[in-house]
Amino acid sequence: MLILRWDGEVAREQHDELVEEEPLEIRVQGRAISVTMRTPGHDADLAAGFLLTEGIIHQRQDVLLIRHCDHKENEEDNVLNVLLDPNVSVDFERLTRHVFASSSCGLCGKATIDSVHGQFPPVQSDIVVSTEILTTLPEKMRRAQTTFERTGGLHAAALFDASGELIALREDVGRHNAVDKVVGHCLLKGPFPLDQSVLVVSGRSSFEIMQKALAARIPIVAAVSAPSSLAAEFATESGQTLIGFLRGHRMNVYSHPHRIAFAQTSQANH
Amino acid sequence: MLILRWDGEVAREQHDELVEEEPLEIRVQGRAISVTMRTPGHDADLAAGFLLTEGIIHQRQDVLLIRHCDHKENEEDNVLNVLLDPNVSVDFERLTRHVFASSSCGLCGKATIDSVHGQFPPVQSDIVVSTEILTTLPEKMRRAQTTFERTGGLHAAALFDASGELIALREDVGRHNAVDKVVGHCLLKGPFPLDQSVLVVSGRSSFEIMQKALAARIPIVAAVSAPSSLAAEFATESGQTLIGFLRGHRMNVYSHPHRIAFAQTSQANH
Repeated sequence: MLILRWDGEVAREQHDELVEEEPLEIRVQGRAISVTMRTPGHDADLAAGFLLTEGIIHQRQDVLLIRHCDHKENEEDNVLNVLLDPNVSVDFERLTRHVFASSSCGLCGKATIDSVHGQFPPVQSDIVVSTEILTTLPEKMRRAQTTFERTGGLHAAALFDASGELIALREDVGRHNAVDKVVGHCLLKGPFPLDQSVLVVSGRSSFEIMQKALAARIPIVAAVSAPSSLAAEFATESGQTLIGFLRGHRMNVYSHPHRIAFAQTSQANH
Repeated sequence: MLILRWDGEVAREQHDELVEEEPLEIRVQGRAISVTMRTPGHDADLAAGFLLTEGIIHQRQDVLLIRHCDHKENEEDNVLNVLLDPNVSVDFERLTRHVFASSSCGLCGKATIDSVHGQFPPVQSDIVVSTEILTTLPEKMRRAQTTFERTGGLHAAALFDASGELIALREDVGRHNAVDKVVGHCLLKGPFPLDQSVLVVSGRSSFEIMQKALAARIPIVAAVSAPSSLAAEFATESGQTLIGFLRGHRMNVYSHPHRIAFAQTSQANH
């Protein structure tokens, strides 16, 4: 689009590329269950990941078909139909009401964590990753990002295996969408479950990110920025290793450090 | 909390302060209408702003009372009761279902904007702000932020008047919450409406931020980072001046630049 760029002295008209944001309606068995603002592209991944992290589906076989409303793969199309195996029972009431009433004044983070564990128990995984490998992941993620360079406006989520190999990367205006997209990609194309992988997110880690990681059985989550108190509490209670401020050769570890092999890097002496 | 900090050579246990994230349930006339993850504090501002930007209330007089469930101002309390004037009609069905079904395949950003305009018409305001004043706002906002310095984990939203005076600033783990909090503060304590003010947000600008600004009649929105395509489209259609990449003496203007007085700053020559 045409914008006006002010450099402190002169205002000039210039062309500028913005990161795309459009609504996506997800329909399951013909019924709308969610409208989310997202960056178009990888919509099937987003829908599959969303359904998994919301606890509606649990395995690849639960999904029979995902396609856009007009039956073409068209980026202008913002309605996605998901056909699930008839044996999957979908609680449409719960899905379309995002409000869960608490029975008393006692709503708190701990109760919220417990209610998630009713659906997704704590994660178990024997994966161990060295600090040498972990510290390379943010740069690998940035190199794999294509849209951020052009627009400066995207969150990223990437999955790596224990040796630091990139499994999948997705970008989106919403960071929860970026996580749903990488998770959905792996659900549809493998590997899945993700109990031998590391999730790296570009920004901060929140309760929602940790909950989605748990749903996909991801044992290690590393963020470039800070976690929230509830993200750290959730990770502690859920058996997840949570890393924050993963920058240069440094990192903070907020929970379950036993999955990290601390190794002096030669670069650390520079 | 106690964390493990790895500096590339040694892992040391250290105390670290995290930004707080806790669920907040908002009840209207005794019914739960929303559960949101937020940073505790200024909960009444958040509830008032949320109800306004969701289109449920329109003026200060619509709110009779806002108080925590245990009737004390207690930061541990995550349930907030809002008592509205009996003349305010609340569509609980719409509120508790965040899904709005589209009638056909034709869901798109433009249709979403039109549906918002049905409730909140485009903004009109004769405010004019100079680039000299605009470029000082991000630094003023950072100086007023208290929690970010300690935790590195918070979004901020601030309202300024045309002369660059700070009206209100709020921080939150969720940037939409930070906007609801400053808007709610002004609804409850004034000034309101905000048609002579500038909203500054710490991160990116999205559809949701612009929609909330429009609900509060804010004519100018300035973000430190990039807008999305839909934020720019929304601003153009809604009569809002949208500024992005407000850094140093520079800025990009995406819509309605007539509210900006472009003035060479002496610093620009440095």
